[in-house]
Amino acid sequence: MSEYSNEQLDYFMGQALLEARKAAEIGEVPIGCVIVSAGKIIGRGSNRRELSHDAVAHAEILAIREANRVLDDWRLEGCTLFVTLEPCPMCAGAIVNSRLRAVYYGCADLKAGCAGTLMNLLTEPRFNHQVQVKKGLRQEECAQVLSDFFAKIREKH
Amino acid sequence: MSEYSNEQLDYFMGQALLEARKAAEIGEVPIGCVIVSAGKIIGRGSNRRELSHDAVAHAEILAIREANRVLDDWRLEGCTLFVTLEPCPMCAGAIVNSRLRAVYYGCADLKAGCAGTLMNLLTEPRFNHQVQVKKGLRQEECAQVLSDFFAKIREKH
Repeated sequence: MSEYSNEQLDYFMGQALLEARKAAEIGEVPIGCVIVSAGKIIGRGSNRRELSHDAVAHAEILAIREANRVLDDWRLEGCTLFVTLEPCPMCAGAIVNSRLRAVYYGCADLKAGCAGTLMNLLTEPRFNHQVQVKKGLRQEECAQVLSDFFAKIREKH
Repeated sequence: MSEYSNEQLDYFMGQALLEARKAAEIGEVPIGCVIVSAGKIIGRGSNRRELSHDAVAHAEILAIREANRVLDDWRLEGCTLFVTLEPCPMCAGAIVNSRLRAVYYGCADLKAGCAGTLMNLLTEPRFNHQVQVKKGLRQEECAQVLSDFFAKIREKH
């Protein structure tokens, strides 16, 4: 499905992992995201829900809004999104609404994942746009950053 | 399901209709939303996708973010959302994520409605929160504001 080489895919997910670690450093659940247009990162997001007190401040939403600003367009046609954790229903819906071409995610979200785990909103044929989706890119590192974070929280309590 | 009288419900949807008309006045698809906490409106939103070039600037998202700021909390527990058109997957997901108690919507969205039409994300038992939902409040007026808007656009072209 990809216009990118395996090395490029690994690099972009590595950038999403950097964003996830930025969230962990400030006590947010470590989820990170980047959006790529023609080989260039045009949006970055790192979960900020607790600090911002904003229910929609998930990594994907922040990256989509940044990419919208960069392109000066709500449409992200032809762009690819990389996120460390499978998108929730809100983020999956935002991905469809912004007309992204493809999504790569690291590890599955068993509780809220809507890109294949609980359901797949990205490929839902009744919506006006469908998004290609591939799971498991750098899966172990994406899961590790989350399990390290929750292990540290448990130590503190 | 409601803590509000029929008069109050009509009033709150009337406020959402006012927000929808604000969108129409500036050329945006007229969809409006208000969020109510203990009888008081704490968030308002009016679709701004085209003007803001922001894929997530739907009426519900803007109202949720305003209510988050007012309460200084991403959780909107106990709050009720009124929106003129059935929520899309992104907005339905944001409603679940922000833990709203109940949603009233005016008219169904046959193409993207995820609060009962194509699917119901608000009552999905596998998510960690479920939202009460009631459709059809001031349905005809909510549909009329949309059909007037699209009729005007067709006249121009």
